[in-house]
Amino acid sequence: MISLADLQRRIEAGELSPDAAIAQSHAAIEAREKDVRAFVRHDRSAKAQTTGPLRGIAVGIKDIIDTADMPTEMGSVIYRGWQPRSDAPVVMMLKRAGATIIGKTTTTAFASRDPTPTLNPHNPGHTPGGSSSGSYCGAAAIKPSFRMLPTVGVKCYSWALDTVGLFGSRAEDLARGLLGMTGRTEFSGIAPAKSPRIGVVRQEFAEAVEPAAEEGLLAAIKAAEKAGASVQTIDLPAAVKEAWRIHPIIQDFEAHRALAWEFDARHDEIAPMLRASLDDTVGLTPKEYDDARRIARRGRRELGELFEGFDVLLTYSAPGTAPAKELASTGSPRYNRLWTLMGNPCVNVPVMKVGGLPVGVQVIARFGNDPGALSAAWFLENALAKSG
Amino acid sequence: MISLADLQRRIEAGELSPDAAIAQSHAAIEAREKDVRAFVRHDRSAKAQTTGPLRGIAVGIKDIIDTADMPTEMGSVIYRGWQPRSDAPVVMMLKRAGATIIGKTTTTAFASRDPTPTLNPHNPGHTPGGSSSGSYCGAAAIKPSFRMLPTVGVKCYSWALDTVGLFGSRAEDLARGLLGMTGRTEFSGIAPAKSPRIGVVRQEFAEAVEPAAEEGLLAAIKAAEKAGASVQTIDLPAAVKEAWRIHPIIQDFEAHRALAWEFDARHDEIAPMLRASLDDTVGLTPKEYDDARRIARRGRRELGELFEGFDVLLTYSAPGTAPAKELASTGSPRYNRLWTLMGNPCVNVPVMKVGGLPVGVQVIARFGNDPGALSAAWFLENALAKSG
Repeated sequence: MISLADLQRRIEAGELSPDAAIAQSHAAIEAREKDVRAFVRHDRSAKAQTTGPLRGIAVGIKDIIDTADMPTEMGSVIYRGWQPRSDAPVVMMLKRAGATIIGKTTTTAFASRDPTPTLNPHNPGHTPGGSSSGSYCGAAAIKPSFRMLPTVGVKCYSWALDTVGLFGSRAEDLARGLLGMTGRTEFSGIAPAKSPRIGVVRQEFAEAVEPAAEEGLLAAIKAAEKAGASVQTIDLPAAVKEAWRIHPIIQDFEAHRALAWEFDARHDEIAPMLRASLDDTVGLTPKEYDDARRIARRGRRELGELFEGFDVLLTYSAPGTAPAKELASTGSPRYNRLWTLMGNPCVNVPVMKVGGLPVGVQVIARFGNDPGALSAAWFLENALAKSG
Repeated sequence: MISLADLQRRIEAGELSPDAAIAQSHAAIEAREKDVRAFVRHDRSAKAQTTGPLRGIAVGIKDIIDTADMPTEMGSVIYRGWQPRSDAPVVMMLKRAGATIIGKTTTTAFASRDPTPTLNPHNPGHTPGGSSSGSYCGAAAIKPSFRMLPTVGVKCYSWALDTVGLFGSRAEDLARGLLGMTGRTEFSGIAPAKSPRIGVVRQEFAEAVEPAAEEGLLAAIKAAEKAGASVQTIDLPAAVKEAWRIHPIIQDFEAHRALAWEFDARHDEIAPMLRASLDDTVGLTPKEYDDARRIARRGRRELGELFEGFDVLLTYSAPGTAPAKELASTGSPRYNRLWTLMGNPCVNVPVMKVGGLPVGVQVIARFGNDPGALSAAWFLENALAKSG
């Protein structure tokens, strides 16, 4: 993947024109797209802007996010050909910063679990995992603090959980992308953390991982320690574990409301895994939902206290490498869901390949400390590069 | 206005068919619509459903709320003829409960301040006030606790503030409407409060009111005391007053993101008062916004403590009666904005007419205590009926 930070530096130095940078991105997509099928729509006519910090930067928009000049199909036949009137705020934030919207990337139906046609670029026998199928795996990625990026104009699945994220080549790209989009000065001048205090959490309550995931976590720990981090394995407070348990109640209760029209009016056209999951959870009550939200609030409070002793937490990004195509699965989000519910910023750091497929770890900072998450992720990237 | 509770009782008793109830609502609209112009679209073919607690109940949907079978024009030429694919969750909640969507009611552009063609039904020389122009004034209304009703599919102006509300003839209608929509058992069996402890707040920081508003508040206080309430005038904590002050920062900062596409791509077509307000607030920074949110959080905490001594607060609903048409204004929301930011449930209780125009007061309960707000409002309605 082309690095945003590298492009930006060359453009700012006058070594590369924004037009040439966009042409490079078009070429990179065309070279792989036939095999990978990451794009629902690649706008070959998309041109560079001449100003803005993200001029020359090509961005693919997940196809659950409204775009005024490209259809937004939500990964679902129900929205085939659907053309929104306006661009979602996050799309406008990119355009205002000078970025070029180069196309729409595949998404599972309503960002749920049914796989898309996208193949894993590292091994075409596997899915890319995740719901952002068109955004590749083995990339750096940030799920920022809840509601830092507006979800207006993004198809809603669960309003308490939906979070817009960024993919890039490494943590520095994510920091520069967020700086450009938000203008938040705290994303300016981010540097690798020095000797971060890292708490390792294995989330045993989320069932066992495959050996590849444990291998990745151990490699990250070893590299971090060698580079001067203080690393300590810790247990999460009971209230936080409890929050992990009730996450599906909040997600499913809200999905039944957010997707009420689809469920009632177009039931048979909902993708099969999502439809089955909705069918199974029709009976959730407001009381179960309210109880779950109370548990989530308690979890957030106790998790906040935990960060008094640590700069970041480190855990698995996924239970293993991305699933084989025959499994017709995007993989399990069970190591992510707790943090999405808590609202903390999470950064994926690619660690290694196992059997040719990427394995990453997840760096989690205190709510609102997105720069801290990026800075620790960058530290870890450097540590891994040195140890590798 | 026809009372939901009355209709529901007669339908449940078999005295009135759902079809006849809907026919009555069609007739009531037709009798006044030419003079009042409350509807963007009246669907004369809309039929009753045969089941559900809200069967036979006709509901007009504010035209910033998505409907799958009627255009949703946001009160703006930018969305002229715009046809969403799906119904918003709140529309589906009504349909699932058996209600009939009878049409779309006028809204100021993006629910901001530019007046609509709707005339005040009590005096055609005046606007109806408010942004929900098509929903009439002089009605009972609830703005529920923040996020109790999902705002998915509702045009966003400010994601921290936007709240979907209900209008009805009296508090009991609102309770029955919310029970039908949400299935929340706490809205079942609501009765008038007995001897509520009422704190009166005049929000002096929000500038002076017109004599009509003070007259209305005094009449409400007198009636409440006579009916056995304990009423005490109180001052709001400094942190809460401060929250009132910073409300516009949050609203305007978010509006610039929520309406970014309209602002950049269709600037000249934005309604003039809204456009001027957006033009004036282009420079708001993330730091000002973050500071404002911190102040709002502190305000919420201190307001929560205040409710230890009171069941509800009582204040003005508006600075006076609805403005004359010539003023080209929907009136000032300055007595509402604090409570919207705090997220508390607010109920409008019509008190009296001054110069032929309705004046109401606002009953505010602790966050999440919507039943308490409705129960106190119902007490006040009864008290006013007795004293009147």
